[in-house]
Amino acid sequence: MSRRRLITGGALAAGGALAGGAAVAATRSGGNGQRPATDMTPAANVGRLVEPFHGARQAGVATEPQAHASFVAFTLRPGTDRAALGRMLRLLTDDAARLTQGRPALADTEAELGLLPARLTVTFGFGPGLYRAAGVDDRRPASVAELPAFRIDRLQPAWSGGDLLLQICADDAITVVHAQRVLIKDSRPFATVRWVQQGFRRSPGVEPDGHTQRNLFGQLDGTANPRPGTPLDTALWVPDGPAWLRDSTTLVVRRISMNLETWDLLGRTDRELAVGRRLDTGAPLTGTAEHDEPDFAATGPDGLTVIPDFSHLTRAHVTEDRLRILRRPYNYDGVPTAEGHADSGLIFTSYQADIARQYLPIQRRLAERDLLNEWTTPIGSAVFAIPPGCQPGGWVGEQVLG
Amino acid sequence: MSRRRLITGGALAAGGALAGGAAVAATRSGGNGQRPATDMTPAANVGRLVEPFHGARQAGVATEPQAHASFVAFTLRPGTDRAALGRMLRLLTDDAARLTQGRPALADTEAELGLLPARLTVTFGFGPGLYRAAGVDDRRPASVAELPAFRIDRLQPAWSGGDLLLQICADDAITVVHAQRVLIKDSRPFATVRWVQQGFRRSPGVEPDGHTQRNLFGQLDGTANPRPGTPLDTALWVPDGPAWLRDSTTLVVRRISMNLETWDLLGRTDRELAVGRRLDTGAPLTGTAEHDEPDFAATGPDGLTVIPDFSHLTRAHVTEDRLRILRRPYNYDGVPTAEGHADSGLIFTSYQADIARQYLPIQRRLAERDLLNEWTTPIGSAVFAIPPGCQPGGWVGEQVLG
Repeated sequence: MSRRRLITGGALAAGGALAGGAAVAATRSGGNGQRPATDMTPAANVGRLVEPFHGARQAGVATEPQAHASFVAFTLRPGTDRAALGRMLRLLTDDAARLTQGRPALADTEAELGLLPARLTVTFGFGPGLYRAAGVDDRRPASVAELPAFRIDRLQPAWSGGDLLLQICADDAITVVHAQRVLIKDSRPFATVRWVQQGFRRSPGVEPDGHTQRNLFGQLDGTANPRPGTPLDTALWVPDGPAWLRDSTTLVVRRISMNLETWDLLGRTDRELAVGRRLDTGAPLTGTAEHDEPDFAATGPDGLTVIPDFSHLTRAHVTEDRLRILRRPYNYDGVPTAEGHADSGLIFTSYQADIARQYLPIQRRLAERDLLNEWTTPIGSAVFAIPPGCQPGGWVGEQVLG
Repeated sequence: MSRRRLITGGALAAGGALAGGAAVAATRSGGNGQRPATDMTPAANVGRLVEPFHGARQAGVATEPQAHASFVAFTLRPGTDRAALGRMLRLLTDDAARLTQGRPALADTEAELGLLPARLTVTFGFGPGLYRAAGVDDRRPASVAELPAFRIDRLQPAWSGGDLLLQICADDAITVVHAQRVLIKDSRPFATVRWVQQGFRRSPGVEPDGHTQRNLFGQLDGTANPRPGTPLDTALWVPDGPAWLRDSTTLVVRRISMNLETWDLLGRTDRELAVGRRLDTGAPLTGTAEHDEPDFAATGPDGLTVIPDFSHLTRAHVTEDRLRILRRPYNYDGVPTAEGHADSGLIFTSYQADIARQYLPIQRRLAERDLLNEWTTPIGSAVFAIPPGCQPGGWVGEQVLG
């Protein structure tokens, strides 16, 4: 987990402005996802933790999810061609590199808000329209194309599509909002804002790193994610091919409305049958611990399978690493209606090397039959290539547009 | 500071469900707002920190501000009279008491989301309409009445007024959203949702407790707050009077839109003159440290006062403790326009024993002439009495409605 590495490595932002001053020696001990009871970290350092920006692969994908995220999708203005995109991405790359390392942007008008990165990452995604506008459609990963229509979809244009995506994540909401402001200002000559989705997970320190988080239905969400190391690498990154493809990945963003009104009418047993897992531990109904392998063949006294054939777990289940997806979801919660009905849901994000190979088969099974569909509705959808990262002096997208 | 006290006192929620299990001994050492470099706290315990619910005074006022807040204002349904209000407030009190201590609400349909209080507080505010509906207008603190119109106001009904307010604050956004959902469901038979304003400050651990936070203009906001102890008590709480008044306070909530587009056109010098303070340190223009006393008589080489007479600092300045207000602001940030103009601002909250004595004189001076008015616009306004707290077995509002 990159966060643990950063803490034990003591990678703190240089220019921070903390009261107290001196960097604090970190004493958090390692382990594999389980934090020992004596494991401690200096609370006042959360703001100064940094994630690396430069590298073969972009940050913000395999990165331990931060507490806050803003997904900003742009529509390119007419005339934003390959050369203009190059200028735009150089500018965005430069400011993203600065802000993620705790330095204000070049023309930062609120420089004091740029000093606490709090593990800020900025991840660039390219929609199909960007490749067309640049005349480089031959460099578009084949699976990065509008998804087929699913019968469960009730997609709204206000949450769908986009030529360019910036996924801005940090453990602090002010840091996210400031970076969003700076990067939108950079983009103005080249693009308009198509949609913005802001989401949240638990605050830093509320739950241990690597702990599966709950969504607003109260379910553990993301248990089946590929584990760090080979399973994750195989699922996530394109291992070879031309420079614009190698070390890239793809992203599907789905805005999923969750109907708490009808969900709340269900008893616990019915909820657990719909999901195929226990609500408290997240264990499959045939097991006792979250990461137990589900036994889809096991039957109960009534002769039926213990895990219903149409449960979310059954329909989403994948065993081969190369077919897995990495879910990195954020919750959203808008303003409720006058009658007190919530506007709650999930900004579901799925990262995978190939959308057609990994995401689509799962999504087809879920759309066809998944008990959870009764209480969830996809209302937004967008797909992006996540191009390779860049080295200092380079810019994100140079392999695609250079 | 209650947070520090809680940490050193080891007040952790009993029913928490943390991986790792055992409670961790806290080693954070005290100090007066300055955290020593070796001062550490177990990061994994942020979720289990609790603020007391019961007491003579309500929590969430003098409480060190949490990272996330939701302000939920209700309109009472026709027929919600004194008896119905009593039932509603018993229900809300009971669930608020449970949730703040890390226990699920009585009929909690997402019980797993109720286990990590993260310093959750629920503060009850009574608008003028509540006293009318209950037929107890003689128990309304005199200053709790609609504010006079100010010429700077551009108030929108969507952000104004309200018969009952729940201020829900915690160091975790999921905790806030869950509590909001539970308490809105409790209120449904009695009231509709009038408005909800969600705001944020820095995440736990990003800055030390007691550190003045920056707003989205990049300014330190809240420097002049009364200090804990006598100054705060004198400003905040009604010290005597009948039971419905003693240990109460009042709250003004103003939604203030901040025009980042025009603010960003200003140079640093002009910004500092508008505020009367340095942007980096927050020091008055005549001083070097944030809490230096401003010298309004000091003049520069040009013969003008160093701190402009119409600066925000000059106009808002108060020296007597009994005339101070406690500001406890949260930032908001909505979805920007297609052209990338931000929807940013401040949920300004002012707590004081008496609105007429403390808030109104400051607000009148600011409305009349304050350089900052050029870039800020009040778009929402509401006033509430914050009645006394209650003891176990009691309910918030019993002194007013019982």
